[in-house]
Amino acid sequence: MSVGTIVVALDAMGGDHAPDVTIEGAAAAAGPELHVRLVGDARVLEPAVMALPEDRRVHLEIVDAPDKVHSHEEGARAVRSKPDSSVVVACREVREGRAAAAVSLGHTGAMMAASILHMRRIPGVIRPGIATPLPSQQGLVVLLDAGANAEAKPEHLAQYAVMGRLFAQRVLDIEDPTVGLLSIGEEAERGSDLVLASHALLKDTPGFIGNVEGRDIPRGTANVVVTDGFTGNVALKLYEASAQVLLSEIRASVRETLIGKIGGLLIRPSIRRLLARLDPDAVGGAFLLGVNGLSVIGHGSSNSTAVANAIRTAAIGVRHDLVQELAAEFGDRGAVESSA
Amino acid sequence: MSVGTIVVALDAMGGDHAPDVTIEGAAAAAGPELHVRLVGDARVLEPAVMALPEDRRVHLEIVDAPDKVHSHEEGARAVRSKPDSSVVVACREVREGRAAAAVSLGHTGAMMAASILHMRRIPGVIRPGIATPLPSQQGLVVLLDAGANAEAKPEHLAQYAVMGRLFAQRVLDIEDPTVGLLSIGEEAERGSDLVLASHALLKDTPGFIGNVEGRDIPRGTANVVVTDGFTGNVALKLYEASAQVLLSEIRASVRETLIGKIGGLLIRPSIRRLLARLDPDAVGGAFLLGVNGLSVIGHGSSNSTAVANAIRTAAIGVRHDLVQELAAEFGDRGAVESSA
Repeated sequence: MSVGTIVVALDAMGGDHAPDVTIEGAAAAAGPELHVRLVGDARVLEPAVMALPEDRRVHLEIVDAPDKVHSHEEGARAVRSKPDSSVVVACREVREGRAAAAVSLGHTGAMMAASILHMRRIPGVIRPGIATPLPSQQGLVVLLDAGANAEAKPEHLAQYAVMGRLFAQRVLDIEDPTVGLLSIGEEAERGSDLVLASHALLKDTPGFIGNVEGRDIPRGTANVVVTDGFTGNVALKLYEASAQVLLSEIRASVRETLIGKIGGLLIRPSIRRLLARLDPDAVGGAFLLGVNGLSVIGHGSSNSTAVANAIRTAAIGVRHDLVQELAAEFGDRGAVESSA
Repeated sequence: MSVGTIVVALDAMGGDHAPDVTIEGAAAAAGPELHVRLVGDARVLEPAVMALPEDRRVHLEIVDAPDKVHSHEEGARAVRSKPDSSVVVACREVREGRAAAAVSLGHTGAMMAASILHMRRIPGVIRPGIATPLPSQQGLVVLLDAGANAEAKPEHLAQYAVMGRLFAQRVLDIEDPTVGLLSIGEEAERGSDLVLASHALLKDTPGFIGNVEGRDIPRGTANVVVTDGFTGNVALKLYEASAQVLLSEIRASVRETLIGKIGGLLIRPSIRRLLARLDPDAVGGAFLLGVNGLSVIGHGSSNSTAVANAIRTAAIGVRHDLVQELAAEFGDRGAVESSA
């Protein structure tokens, strides 16, 4: 392992199609500068990895974790009762310095709980939040909190703004990201009690452009959109499904006539190009920001491309020192606050 | 005017393209059984109406309201200070029995305030809510509250469920509507504090199917989705914009190549058919439920078709005694509660 090699721990047992897509995604992402530690039941993983051609497995390692959290389990409880589960061991790899980032496509609640319990919070961060990059007309928009905490206080939203902005800079390479506060009108005096109180706190955040509305997520009006985890999760799931539903309705409608079918065939390359550009799998996962290590949570339905992209995105975060930058940001703030 | 003729008061000065589209929409909707009272500046309306062919204006009447609420004004304040504005006079028409419903495409806040101030609340209703019918894979879904009150209590959501169900029955003709509570997981124990408390209250509501997620709006999992006005308004605007953005991105992508352009022409009839089916203008407006009269709020950008549909939908509500049914429902409940 050369100096500068990044190591990512992958919960190889998490996700709807594990371990096939996790092994395949890991093999696709791994290389001389990016090693992947596959965490899971070694009896299952070893034969599968050994079946790969040697050049595809040379940058993979296996870390035995015989247990597993199932999708029906309550996340936090399962994490406490299953110290040898793949998601817990993957997070411990980060805490104990054997990996710089952990990626899981499994149970979101379990990955959150394992990350907070084992990586701990960055000192000064009140509550970690989930940052989800979403496609928009103007490139990716970072929505956070996308569901870590259903209830939020103004101080949490103020921290989400700082974390989201650093994430957009370091991982998405947006030079001077704008930040909007999700509300139901652009005027500072409209919105919920939480929004009104948060607006005042956010006023001095660099890049803050004021309140934005639901429509501003697809339009990409701001690079970062902050909100509580309840609204954020509703928005995330609505947005994903509306695109899926509209596309499937278009497909069905086009197929109703012969002319439509021919037209559908002709536009297929254009649609593919569009979908590739808008593909949420291009990032491959959401980031739990505020924990003391990189924690990436992918869709349970991810294919191997999404897995590989999640690993690569995690590596970008590591290479650009996202966690150290966050720690410096909140360490400074903590110092300022306690000296004030 | 024959017995059974329904009279709708239209704020003829409200909306981005008033009074042209309001007069045209009114003329299209009006007939022997549906009279429209155009409320606005008579000096503007009279010549425009007189310019219509006689058979198109015979079911229109003009009600002079020389003043107007502008879009930059604060709704409630403008309504109090402008008793002769078109939106206020339209609501007074309902209160004083000269019309059975009021329709405005103007300032949402002003129409809400004018409706509550002049139509008053139905006894027993704590807070009126905005019910917006949205297209889904399974027909229309009624989302409420879509923005009347940014903050909500569990009792409000419980009333929204009852009102939304009656609306779906009487206006959208859905026999036994299902009701979902918008949350961030289907389990009863997940969600915000508001959702947890509301779930318990909603348990015995007829048609209640439990919690639904953001994705269930486009999928049409429930006929009625209840939520607070903050989440509802974010969801509404996100949903509208995501469809617009995706369609415009498809159009742009298809036009990048000649083959794509040809394909685009061939699928155009299919897309038109689909859009006609999914068209939110088919209903033409949202209903402020809980006030003692029918109050319909249309999009400011409505064209004359949307205006005509809003008037027709209002007439359906009148014909099916929506307000009387709501009053009976809450009157009974009030009686039960006070005798308990």
